[in-house]
Amino acid sequence: MALVVQKYGGSSVADANSVKRVAKRIAEAKRAGNDVVVVVSAMGDTTDELLDLAAQITPLPPQRELDILLTAGERISMSLLAMAITNLGVKAKSFTGQQAGLITDAVHGRARIVDVVPSRIRETIEKGQVAIVAGFQGVTTETNDVTTLGRGGSDTTAVALAAGLDADVCEIYTDVDGVFTADPRIVPAARKIDRLTYEEMLELAASGAKVLALRSVEYARRYGVPVHVRSSFSHAAGTLVVGTHGDRIDPNAPAPAVARAAGDGAAQKEAEMEAPIISGVAHDRSEAKITVVGVPDVPGMAARIFEVVAAAGANIDMIVQNVSAAQTGLTDISFTLPEGDGPQTMAALKSVQDELGFASLQFDDQIGKLSLVGAGMKSHPGVSAALFGALRDAGINIEMISTSEIRISVVTRADSLDEAVRAVHHAFGLDSSEGEAVVYAGTGR
Amino acid sequence: MALVVQKYGGSSVADANSVKRVAKRIAEAKRAGNDVVVVVSAMGDTTDELLDLAAQITPLPPQRELDILLTAGERISMSLLAMAITNLGVKAKSFTGQQAGLITDAVHGRARIVDVVPSRIRETIEKGQVAIVAGFQGVTTETNDVTTLGRGGSDTTAVALAAGLDADVCEIYTDVDGVFTADPRIVPAARKIDRLTYEEMLELAASGAKVLALRSVEYARRYGVPVHVRSSFSHAAGTLVVGTHGDRIDPNAPAPAVARAAGDGAAQKEAEMEAPIISGVAHDRSEAKITVVGVPDVPGMAARIFEVVAAAGANIDMIVQNVSAAQTGLTDISFTLPEGDGPQTMAALKSVQDELGFASLQFDDQIGKLSLVGAGMKSHPGVSAALFGALRDAGINIEMISTSEIRISVVTRADSLDEAVRAVHHAFGLDSSEGEAVVYAGTGR
Repeated sequence: MALVVQKYGGSSVADANSVKRVAKRIAEAKRAGNDVVVVVSAMGDTTDELLDLAAQITPLPPQRELDILLTAGERISMSLLAMAITNLGVKAKSFTGQQAGLITDAVHGRARIVDVVPSRIRETIEKGQVAIVAGFQGVTTETNDVTTLGRGGSDTTAVALAAGLDADVCEIYTDVDGVFTADPRIVPAARKIDRLTYEEMLELAASGAKVLALRSVEYARRYGVPVHVRSSFSHAAGTLVVGTHGDRIDPNAPAPAVARAAGDGAAQKEAEMEAPIISGVAHDRSEAKITVVGVPDVPGMAARIFEVVAAAGANIDMIVQNVSAAQTGLTDISFTLPEGDGPQTMAALKSVQDELGFASLQFDDQIGKLSLVGAGMKSHPGVSAALFGALRDAGINIEMISTSEIRISVVTRADSLDEAVRAVHHAFGLDSSEGEAVVYAGTGR
Repeated sequence: MALVVQKYGGSSVADANSVKRVAKRIAEAKRAGNDVVVVVSAMGDTTDELLDLAAQITPLPPQRELDILLTAGERISMSLLAMAITNLGVKAKSFTGQQAGLITDAVHGRARIVDVVPSRIRETIEKGQVAIVAGFQGVTTETNDVTTLGRGGSDTTAVALAAGLDADVCEIYTDVDGVFTADPRIVPAARKIDRLTYEEMLELAASGAKVLALRSVEYARRYGVPVHVRSSFSHAAGTLVVGTHGDRIDPNAPAPAVARAAGDGAAQKEAEMEAPIISGVAHDRSEAKITVVGVPDVPGMAARIFEVVAAAGANIDMIVQNVSAAQTGLTDISFTLPEGDGPQTMAALKSVQDELGFASLQFDDQIGKLSLVGAGMKSHPGVSAALFGALRDAGINIEMISTSEIRISVVTRADSLDEAVRAVHHAFGLDSSEGEAVVYAGTGR
């Protein structure tokens, strides 16, 4: 008998009929002999509707009150889901974050889980009942106040509960079949990935893949919780996110997949059957680039600039500093950041222009970021070369580059991004069939 | 500096603009130097919408889950109200029933308050902040489960908090100006009552006056909480419900108001200026009458019948037993009960017909109940006589009669009820002016 934590997002419980459909699925899992704990988000657009109500009241709602308001959404979905399951003859009870023992710090709106004390959830499953838990919310023990976990909070609730209960698996139900080698809306030949390591999933999530919240993957990695991303519309296996690729890959072996994928089209099908070291191609259109032009190239200048940027609250991603021009002693520093952080960051930099002595500022929100993610990438220099070659062959210019142990990211023009994704996906042999793969060449944006 | 508990119902916070209007009123009370604690119901139709969602899921929702579902409504209204008050520059915090320390028994759907531990509310007002509390809900200490108090629950929350905080007054805001001598929709000449005793208010509420929930009045009487029923649309004083009429009435004096009202039209205006012992005329159209026909008149028969009725869960109100006919030894027993309790009560009685040996059952849902309420009524026999006389003069037949210390109720045909209310209101000198009072004679239903 396995203990399964299942998480259903807002689109899976958008209306009464969806709630009943999900209830049926949960009842099946229970009747199949599992202990089942369910984490549920607010129904459909509930959270947006509540935010809209708050906006009608005040432009600056106190965060504590906003948290109380938003958590009403999960109360509604969780109680309805418990009713629907009970109606199918399976006993179910719903629990708020507080009742489920999700203890957080007191940072309203983006609280961090500090402890999970799921004694009531344990009692419930020991009685043979299904426990439904409100996602996205917790409680501070100091003040007994309701908190929310911020974006992707319900995924994090599910993984944290799975860790706290030592569950066998945490199933994240979504409206797609799993994690794909690229966004299927951009790359029709994209394939579902059967298995990913936490590190790969982290890089994909951080690079724009939206199927799983970054925080929940970090949590899963820390506590070794196996996460199964799958569709609530089918019973097919989705993508399993785990600690290693298991015996299907030898991290010290040479990388046949890359070598072949980059050059040898005929061998691609075979390469896929082996352990590919490339997991997928992620893309992100939500960033912007700021360039500080004509910066005096003296020690400590970069540190001073990024102190100002950090004080403005911006999360910077990639940084590039040009080689200083010998005759002027000036350089340019570019960095990317979430587009929404742009205005306050520009204003903060502008306010120190005289002090720092740079010439001007440029803001560019027409950039796109492509990331190639795969285990053991750094030890295989062929990967970067193949990536740059594929982009060159597609006529796409690279503006910035950054790399990690298992990721290479490049910045391109936003209107070249889709074509870049298709070109790279094809070049690395990720396309599901030769026939479909060629579509990329003729399409653009 | 007074401590004021204010309660706003769902119609006072139906949308964002209403919430802002109420917030302004609360901020004024705070700025006037009061400590303010606010109890709020769910916005407008929220509760009905949530019930409708539950009905789409299952015809028989588990009561525990229904309680969790419904309490989402107050979470929304209370946090929005706290935001709106904060937006006016007055600090405010919202609290769930659990956070406010409203401890109840575990009877979901109609829980009883067993304790009030408002330590967080006290802290909040000591900091000079306004505390907003969710009405209608509490928590069981045994299981930490959310409960609801049932109909009129928010009024009860307000009075219980006022008692627990030893507040100077509990203000119940509504969409009418206070408690009236009769329903103004039926009696245009009805007057607002300035002051009522708990007992009078209890009888009025129990007799169909809907402005204040019966339970909240019982609670207020037990703990001596002064309740002020007033309009959220004006600053005029409403109706004060307190322990005694104060020095304005001597319960042992003769009753000039009644004596004059019944006979002497010219003296009515003067009588009103003295302490009237008649508070008002309530009516109720929600009851039905069951008659058990041909009951053998043997000892214990009535007890047996009402055991069966009680087991069916019906709350009976009035009972009449005819004098037994000497030649047959048979009698008829009639009683009234909420119309909704009719079907199961009829079925329960039918099932014991052979055992008890009665002839037949009759069900009548076309009845109306009129109640005249006032202090010291029983010691003034003229009151009943004047009531019956007024109904006779209006040509209205009386089917049943019951009396208490401060109330006389009669059952009439439902279609005579409005006219009966107007006739009695006029006869007892309750009309606000002679000119308006005569309208009753010509109107009917």
